[in-house]
Amino acid sequence: METSIPRVVAVLGRGVLTPGSPLVPADDLGFTRGDGCFDALRVVRDAEGVRVDHATRHLERFARSAAAMGLPPIDVAAWTGLVHEAAEAWEGEGEAVCKVIWTRGGEFVASDPVGVALVAPVPGSCVPLRVAALTTGRRADAFRDAPWLLGGVKTISYATNAAAKREAARRGADDAVFVSSDGYLLEGPTSALVVARHGLLDTTPTAHTGILPSVTLAVIAEHAAAAGREVRERLMKPEELGLATGVWLVSAIRGVCPVVELDGRPLPFNPRITRTLARWAGFAPAEG
Amino acid sequence: METSIPRVVAVLGRGVLTPGSPLVPADDLGFTRGDGCFDALRVVRDAEGVRVDHATRHLERFARSAAAMGLPPIDVAAWTGLVHEAAEAWEGEGEAVCKVIWTRGGEFVASDPVGVALVAPVPGSCVPLRVAALTTGRRADAFRDAPWLLGGVKTISYATNAAAKREAARRGADDAVFVSSDGYLLEGPTSALVVARHGLLDTTPTAHTGILPSVTLAVIAEHAAAAGREVRERLMKPEELGLATGVWLVSAIRGVCPVVELDGRPLPFNPRITRTLARWAGFAPAEG
Repeated sequence: METSIPRVVAVLGRGVLTPGSPLVPADDLGFTRGDGCFDALRVVRDAEGVRVDHATRHLERFARSAAAMGLPPIDVAAWTGLVHEAAEAWEGEGEAVCKVIWTRGGEFVASDPVGVALVAPVPGSCVPLRVAALTTGRRADAFRDAPWLLGGVKTISYATNAAAKREAARRGADDAVFVSSDGYLLEGPTSALVVARHGLLDTTPTAHTGILPSVTLAVIAEHAAAAGREVRERLMKPEELGLATGVWLVSAIRGVCPVVELDGRPLPFNPRITRTLARWAGFAPAEG
Repeated sequence: METSIPRVVAVLGRGVLTPGSPLVPADDLGFTRGDGCFDALRVVRDAEGVRVDHATRHLERFARSAAAMGLPPIDVAAWTGLVHEAAEAWEGEGEAVCKVIWTRGGEFVASDPVGVALVAPVPGSCVPLRVAALTTGRRADAFRDAPWLLGGVKTISYATNAAAKREAARRGADDAVFVSSDGYLLEGPTSALVVARHGLLDTTPTAHTGILPSVTLAVIAEHAAAAGREVRERLMKPEELGLATGVWLVSAIRGVCPVVELDGRPLPFNPRITRTLARWAGFAPAEG
């Protein structure tokens, strides 16, 4: 498979390989059952060289995902080396994603887990989003005492997240936001939710909701605290957003994307807060 | 990876390959996001040769899974050829599973889907099961009007199914049965539920429940109809099982397994109906 897109495939214990060549055994449980975890880190190459943003935080979350699934433990030091080796080997300019994946190994014959880091450019920049609200079919507290539902765990079983993005596109929207069956906003398929209102910043609570703890949100919250502000965790309903000053979906890869429409209803767009949040998250401000 | 376990890897458009060698690109969406579908067929090699049970039914369900996910269409004739080629190449004796998998192709660079058929022996025979009831966190009608939840679609995003089996083992049980948040029995992580009561056979309804339509159950229902009996679809609560004559988890691979205990409470075991159901499903009767 020839391509001009610069990308890197690196394997734990082996280093950088030729991208595009087959790597995963067909009976690897990560492939046959989505039985593995992942994380996604931002890679930036600019005049100062290449860097990986918040590598330790992402790899520690990666390790928590593996532990929650009973996968072999993640060696954060070894993965840090692999991620930086992969980032260094990436020949592109600008922004890329480094996706790390760790699986349970062979389904039919016991074999080592696949541990891989993939680097590829990020398609497009953050733009104002029209978003469709899609139910998860679960109440906001459905993950309480049900660890087998893998709430807050970044598994590679992402088929419903991918299907939600396709459903959003089918409705003419750019992205989705999940809503619980009892009507509370949760998170995007690949992002966390932030709402500004009455001079405060709110996000949605993790734990019982099954929402993935967002590294980007944690970084924003620390900068907010340093600026004397707080990011509160709060369950919110879509109808509350009409009173908001601004609404965003944030992630390590796309940064801080303003949500300007929910199910066809316009939401307020605040360029000033967008710039502040993007700066706190380590991104150039989104245009819009 | 050397092994003495006989198994086969065959690829759509290429045929039988050496098992154990890497086959799947690391950025295949089936691997990075569980964004693909699968099905599992029973292979039997005995004195009469090798056969694949109900290949067309399984591959037609496989095609429906692909269509529900917006994957490239399944060519049932081509897959039938691949499945039989893989089964013929299997050098084992007795029973095996043929798992077919179909993915969306490359995440970072557009590439062909992976289409693969894997054959490997089935570990162990069907034994009486002690089962743990685990909530899905969703009501029994949660999949109504929410196709992005992929109810009834056999995706390779099976991490919660695998986690449910681990939770069952942690509780000292052999398998799990999912229960809706409003208290209805649904299905096992890899099997369908059948209950005999008052001389009737009941199973749980598909469609709004998200339950996968079981090929084995359809075969049983046809034999039942030929014998002048009906398999009814009905929502049931665990507490009703105390009045049952027998309870089973059925699948194409393990056959008809009696459930003899639910959450530590014994359930009646009926060897006669077990033998009948197993014969209808095309299996030797389970021992117990």
